[in-house]
Amino acid sequence: MGSSSNGGAMSGRAPGTVGGVKSSPPPVDKEVDYANYFCTYSFLYHQKDMLSDRVRMDAYYNAVFENKHHFVGKTVLDVGTGSGILAIWSAQAGARKVYAVEATTMADHARALVKANGLEDIVEVIQGSVEDISLPEKVDVIISEWMGYFLLRESMFDSVISARDRWLKPTGVMYPSHARMWLAPIKSTLSDRKKNDLDGAMADWDNFSDEIKSYYGVDMSVLTKPFAQEQEKHYIQTAVWNDLNPLQVIGTPTLVKEMDCLTATVSEIEEVRSNVTSVINGHTTLCGFGGWFDVQFRGRKEDPAQQDIELTTAPSERHCTHWGQQVFIMSNPINVEEGDNLNLGLVMSRSKENHRLMEVELSCEIKEASGNPKESFKKTYFIE
Amino acid sequence: MGSSSNGGAMSGRAPGTVGGVKSSPPPVDKEVDYANYFCTYSFLYHQKDMLSDRVRMDAYYNAVFENKHHFVGKTVLDVGTGSGILAIWSAQAGARKVYAVEATTMADHARALVKANGLEDIVEVIQGSVEDISLPEKVDVIISEWMGYFLLRESMFDSVISARDRWLKPTGVMYPSHARMWLAPIKSTLSDRKKNDLDGAMADWDNFSDEIKSYYGVDMSVLTKPFAQEQEKHYIQTAVWNDLNPLQVIGTPTLVKEMDCLTATVSEIEEVRSNVTSVINGHTTLCGFGGWFDVQFRGRKEDPAQQDIELTTAPSERHCTHWGQQVFIMSNPINVEEGDNLNLGLVMSRSKENHRLMEVELSCEIKEASGNPKESFKKTYFIE
Repeated sequence: MGSSSNGGAMSGRAPGTVGGVKSSPPPVDKEVDYANYFCTYSFLYHQKDMLSDRVRMDAYYNAVFENKHHFVGKTVLDVGTGSGILAIWSAQAGARKVYAVEATTMADHARALVKANGLEDIVEVIQGSVEDISLPEKVDVIISEWMGYFLLRESMFDSVISARDRWLKPTGVMYPSHARMWLAPIKSTLSDRKKNDLDGAMADWDNFSDEIKSYYGVDMSVLTKPFAQEQEKHYIQTAVWNDLNPLQVIGTPTLVKEMDCLTATVSEIEEVRSNVTSVINGHTTLCGFGGWFDVQFRGRKEDPAQQDIELTTAPSERHCTHWGQQVFIMSNPINVEEGDNLNLGLVMSRSKENHRLMEVELSCEIKEASGNPKESFKKTYFIE
Repeated sequence: MGSSSNGGAMSGRAPGTVGGVKSSPPPVDKEVDYANYFCTYSFLYHQKDMLSDRVRMDAYYNAVFENKHHFVGKTVLDVGTGSGILAIWSAQAGARKVYAVEATTMADHARALVKANGLEDIVEVIQGSVEDISLPEKVDVIISEWMGYFLLRESMFDSVISARDRWLKPTGVMYPSHARMWLAPIKSTLSDRKKNDLDGAMADWDNFSDEIKSYYGVDMSVLTKPFAQEQEKHYIQTAVWNDLNPLQVIGTPTLVKEMDCLTATVSEIEEVRSNVTSVINGHTTLCGFGGWFDVQFRGRKEDPAQQDIELTTAPSERHCTHWGQQVFIMSNPINVEEGDNLNLGLVMSRSKENHRLMEVELSCEIKEASGNPKESFKKTYFIE
């Protein structure tokens, strides 16, 4: 039974001890987590992809170099250093000492890069999970690029929280300092395309099923329904990476989550619940929803940034980040009018099978501007 | 750090207790094995792909129904039943009782399929690793479709051996009974294409490296060599799935492994060593090597098949199986002449990181028909 597909793993991150008062799921087995998540980050081509994201790079570069006061003579912890880029910038910006923690063998490359750039006296690369390693001191700054699709995929912020609670001085600053999640109604040809793909898959199943019956004497019809469910999940219910054009956003983007990186807890990101309203901006077709995030580098109230920097992954004419946006499609697009109100409910939680993947329950009630109810629907999606 | 790639896992199989007198590697953690391997098999679309392979299906169907004497009134164990197809055929061919073992939740679908086809009194679906489950009796037949790319990728035969040693009666029969691995010199545009891809990746790296230096003040050159090694491994050293045309086979196919499924041990498949000679059949270019396998259903000497059946994955004009062939490319193709002799050395062993993946050391000495040495080379490949 030859197969070329690569199991069910995704790219991901370190198991975090789940803090907070609610009962925690059992800690993730580290080897399983590695097989499921970390391993992609040990490849240079993957680091290169992220280093090639100019929007991402510019934001962090400017955040550091426009705010040297946070770095000069200070101590820094880079959580998930990868190639070491943020640690290197922190040192170049004047840090006295930088601890660059990386769970995978990419740490070896980070160490080489640090040395090749003459910074080995400042940057110490430590291979390990940030939850497991020990530092000789607390730090003034925690810098990390931890954001996944729709902000929270990969659940890497758990590790940043863990690092912050153990290693950040009471006066310390988080880079980035804040994060937000956005959701907007969109039009997109993806809905039709995925619906067609699904129909095609089911037509193909019908032919297949007939052939197995004719040639091999086995009735497969009992598996038609489970196959349809599996394909529905794959084609319709799995969030799609997309680079949306702003013209596809057909109503007000809504803020579904705001997070202060200095105070956020795992509890508040384990389950994200939000009720928001979006107003349609024209006569068009509602095909689904787009989700994205932004982060800000504002420092802290007592020690603010001199230059606020924002990294946004919102739909843009000119910019595309490697995060794209996540599209949640509707198999049955709905005609909408300017002024229609969408009452949106979102509940995002972690997949039981893999805490680094998300389940998203989206509900939508459409009302005319007059208040007359139009349509409503509810669907569960998966960010895989 | 968003990433869509799916970790480093592959499709795969149950951890086998590694038998034999040599020291064994530590048993594979089951959850890691699931994350790395098994999980793909729990999807119906993947089972459908295999069930849609007519060559595979016809071979097993004919093997069973042309040899009912092995099944009528007998007991059968299907190792890795998947959708249950082989178990169902065994029952339809007259088996008294069939134990269908499946490690993943596909077992639920197998059970439904058995019932929908009226065979629940004969076929008992058991979810679990065949190494772990218990049967109430030994069986007359072990049937299994365990073959991976180049026969041994996935290392599933370990589980068949384990099942055979525990559950096959002394008089029992293996389906299939024999297996062979073949290697042949080939011509292929893949070599040039992959070489171009590699060159392109390195040119892209150079641009990238220049940009990181100009825009971000970091010298990446120390990572050029590791990046090149990683890309060489990816583009050149990773065996490529291909559907070879017989005209691409430019020399005698050589038999690198023969296996009797009734007596094979894990030791003999953990490392496959072979020295063979192939003779070039015309004036052409040696671009690499193609590997494939075949299996036979011959029964056993004391209880042979009435109709020998063969399932071959050799290059064919008319047939293509989902296994294809595995191509080991040469970055520097060599001109060869009719009558040139290729002395080939092959050593195939399991990857230390994942016992279900293979490392292949290929060496080749080319001599003219006259005996004059021409060229030789040696390369390590990876079957991922």
